[in-house]
Amino acid sequence: MNQPLRITVWNEAFHETVLPGMGDYYPDGIHGALAAGIEAQIPDATVRCAVLSDPEHGLTEQVLADTDVLLWWGHVKHDEVDDEVVDRVHRHVLGGMGLLVLHSGHFSKIFIKLMGTTCSLSWRNAGEREVLWTVAPAHPIAEGVAQPVVIPEQETYGEFFDIPAPDELVFVSSFSGGEVFRSGATFRRGNGRIFYFSPGDEHYPVYNQAEVQRIIANGIRWAAQPGKPRSAPEVSQAPRGWFEPHAGPTAQ
Amino acid sequence: MNQPLRITVWNEAFHETVLPGMGDYYPDGIHGALAAGIEAQIPDATVRCAVLSDPEHGLTEQVLADTDVLLWWGHVKHDEVDDEVVDRVHRHVLGGMGLLVLHSGHFSKIFIKLMGTTCSLSWRNAGEREVLWTVAPAHPIAEGVAQPVVIPEQETYGEFFDIPAPDELVFVSSFSGGEVFRSGATFRRGNGRIFYFSPGDEHYPVYNQAEVQRIIANGIRWAAQPGKPRSAPEVSQAPRGWFEPHAGPTAQ
Amino acid sequence: MNQPLRITVWNEAFHETVLPGMGDYYPDGIHGALAAGIEAQIPDATVRCAVLSDPEHGLTEQVLADTDVLLWWGHVKHDEVDDEVVDRVHRHVLGGMGLLVLHSGHFSKIFIKLMGTTCSLSWRNAGEREVLWTVAPAHPIAEGVAQPVVIPEQETYGEFFDIPAPDELVFVSSFSGGEVFRSGATFRRGNGRIFYFSPGDEHYPVYNQAEVQRIIANGIRWAAQPGKPRSAPEVSQAPRGWFEPHAGPTAQ
Amino acid sequence: MNQPLRITVWNEAFHETVLPGMGDYYPDGIHGALAAGIEAQIPDATVRCAVLSDPEHGLTEQVLADTDVLLWWGHVKHDEVDDEVVDRVHRHVLGGMGLLVLHSGHFSKIFIKLMGTTCSLSWRNAGEREVLWTVAPAHPIAEGVAQPVVIPEQETYGEFFDIPAPDELVFVSSFSGGEVFRSGATFRRGNGRIFYFSPGDEHYPVYNQAEVQRIIANGIRWAAQPGKPRSAPEVSQAPRGWFEPHAGPTAQ
Repeated sequence: MNQPLRITVWNEAFHETVLPGMGDYYPDGIHGALAAGIEAQIPDATVRCAVLSDPEHGLTEQVLADTDVLLWWGHVKHDEVDDEVVDRVHRHVLGGMGLLVLHSGHFSKIFIKLMGTTCSLSWRNAGEREVLWTVAPAHPIAEGVAQPVVIPEQETYGEFFDIPAPDELVFVSSFSGGEVFRSGATFRRGNGRIFYFSPGDEHYPVYNQAEVQRIIANGIRWAAQPGKPRSAPEVSQAPRGWFEPHAGPTAQ
Repeated sequence: MNQPLRITVWNEAFHETVLPGMGDYYPDGIHGALAAGIEAQIPDATVRCAVLSDPEHGLTEQVLADTDVLLWWGHVKHDEVDDEVVDRVHRHVLGGMGLLVLHSGHFSKIFIKLMGTTCSLSWRNAGEREVLWTVAPAHPIAEGVAQPVVIPEQETYGEFFDIPAPDELVFVSSFSGGEVFRSGATFRRGNGRIFYFSPGDEHYPVYNQAEVQRIIANGIRWAAQPGKPRSAPEVSQAPRGWFEPHAGPTAQ
Repeated sequence: MNQPLRITVWNEAFHETVLPGMGDYYPDGIHGALAAGIEAQIPDATVRCAVLSDPEHGLTEQVLADTDVLLWWGHVKHDEVDDEVVDRVHRHVLGGMGLLVLHSGHFSKIFIKLMGTTCSLSWRNAGEREVLWTVAPAHPIAEGVAQPVVIPEQETYGEFFDIPAPDELVFVSSFSGGEVFRSGATFRRGNGRIFYFSPGDEHYPVYNQAEVQRIIANGIRWAAQPGKPRSAPEVSQAPRGWFEPHAGPTAQ
Repeated sequence: MNQPLRITVWNEAFHETVLPGMGDYYPDGIHGALAAGIEAQIPDATVRCAVLSDPEHGLTEQVLADTDVLLWWGHVKHDEVDDEVVDRVHRHVLGGMGLLVLHSGHFSKIFIKLMGTTCSLSWRNAGEREVLWTVAPAHPIAEGVAQPVVIPEQETYGEFFDIPAPDELVFVSSFSGGEVFRSGATFRRGNGRIFYFSPGDEHYPVYNQAEVQRIIANGIRWAAQPGKPRSAPEVSQAPRGWFEPHAGPTAQ
């Protein structure tokens, strides 16, 4: 329990190469901003980054095996993520690795595969104010989070967001245009834990905001299961009474 | 199943006596407006009304026994509802009677008793626009409901709304001031079904709006269990194997 | 609403060709037994069957479009189901078609795709007694179901069953060897409703049991959304204020 | 976060005075056994006990204010617990104090008040074997818990257990007579967290079993929110735009 948490931040890292001015607020890319926020909030964490252009997208078996929690940011390059890597991440999540899916990651292959739905939503990029409200104050991810958090400018996401009913709905946001969105939601799948968190877009410096960093750090701590053997559930067959203390099928 | 649904609409019916102008939009009181809406939506339903000033508040054992679904509207007179009547309604809900709790009924004795929490919320009466969004389109209460429903003027209710996490969250509203509210939520308790629905206030003619009437009618149909024997769960003791087809404790 | 429900029963129909004696209790196959049970319980339903060996497995676009609720029974031939047909069924479920997944269908491609997990479990075929308990008596699928239902002989399914936490857990079973299983569970996905129900195996005449037929019929009624336009959620983009009654972006 | 957890174990402590032989396995009472188990599992916790016969049942405002997690064991003396103390505990739970309700505590005033239901169940004291299965392996309360845990002799609890659908169902038990029971369930209420755990009876030394102690310790860690200001949700009224960074109602 006293081992430092091992965090991997994944970013498709495409907008960074084409969006003028993005370097002003995200000089090290979205992944760099996320990593800096995590390091500020969880000083003893070990944070590394991986991007689409890395071999195997930087998500080798070894990297995932050494990762307690993976953060996923993608937007326009979802289709370029290899299915084999997606299957590998899926297996690790079901085996106990934590996963934070951020913003436009709702349409990533891994999130769709885990949710089983279209993960579609309505959207509008108009720099509206997002107000994020805690609806589950006793949840660990809401710990120390202001009620509400105001994000001055953000892409608008609106319902219907086609996800399974979350295990726990933690945050709901309004946008100044009148839309609402289930902006923070948890899902347990297999032996793993998933947190979807919608704030954060390539056009606005949302990940530099301390309250947002706090929520992401809370999400990481909640999703992490350090020290847990990593294995996805498997089918098994066992004789009657296999679990009895004195072994063998019971006479009962 | 072909018996007409038996609906009882309960209203404290106080504002009707003191609020100038309320008669313009609710000439027959809030209960009258609710009853009219139900009759419009479920033509073969049997609808009756009961108010605080009736003997036993109009909620005698017989009335409840003859009620498939009870609607509850109260606001400033919650404390004047007899505990004995509250206990009676509670028993009937756990026994299978449907209950729709409306708007300021969140602070009614019966809702607090059923939820176990404070049922508190934040509020502001400023005639803001409410936009009500469906977040569970496959739920029967959302059937045929427009996405979204716009209520031009309404009292603002905001989170944190101190209720248990709903079994099913059906609607979430935004208000033009930026608040959000879980405005439509279901709860199964004992053998009964409860639907909380927040729109509707004494100052605005919300219950005259067809979309709102539709939602309330859907809620009634969802909450009703006509023909179900009315009894709350009870503690029981039974010998081993009592459920075996050939009776008596099993040898196994 | 008064249209007869349109039910399609799908079966891989393989055991019927190789398992000696199965014809004694299922002379018309598992699908035939299921169809007969439905017809007994919902006399005005329109029931048809489809099997693996039919062209497109009998699940053409037209058949699905004409189906309110699809039942799925498969066991050893999951891999022979075309991915294209699976995608088609998936799209129809998210579009509003009801789906009942039965017994070993837990490992079908369609169920795994909808759940996002491995859907694995533990099992043992030892003809143990299953006792099925209602844990949600106010749920429509439990209506009129005895507490408990005893199934004299059945394949044992045990936890951990790797599914998402159900929206509603309706039944939990014990087996005489001591295992437990979440045997009746609902899931809303997209615009559709899914009911997983575990009793029923090729070795035991479970689907001939009236209580089991009752539960399946309840599940069908719960999952059906007759008359609902069939379309899966889609991403959308809309200008600010698109939902305002007087159209066009609002000035607000 | 590095402060030791402050635990209070409450017991009605009646059986200890009348049940012959109980001293053999619980020489320090049920509360003493629980306290010893907690100290073994969470060595740096501060554990104290309180019993019915203490002034204010040992649950003064000060004691509760100094308690991160309260454990509750009661059986035949529920009615002797003062309503005022119940209200006080209720307020603290909604304010953020963790609560573990154990075994026959299902019928305690505090649990009924928090759940809103009858909390009834079926039971039989026949020393049957309980087998406790994890159905949520990614939940913190299941961490390091064997699958399954076998309790050689225990009072039988059976469904229907009249509680709200749990926020998270962690354990389900079978009994050798064939009953099942939702034996480990969590509920968030207000700002607090509640864990109901059914194993443990005055007739059997269940709390001496290491696996059971492990689950209780996990439950304590999960329910604790050390350092969180203790206050239950309250109704509030705020002007439009109160949350804006630059204060005052917004012009918007």
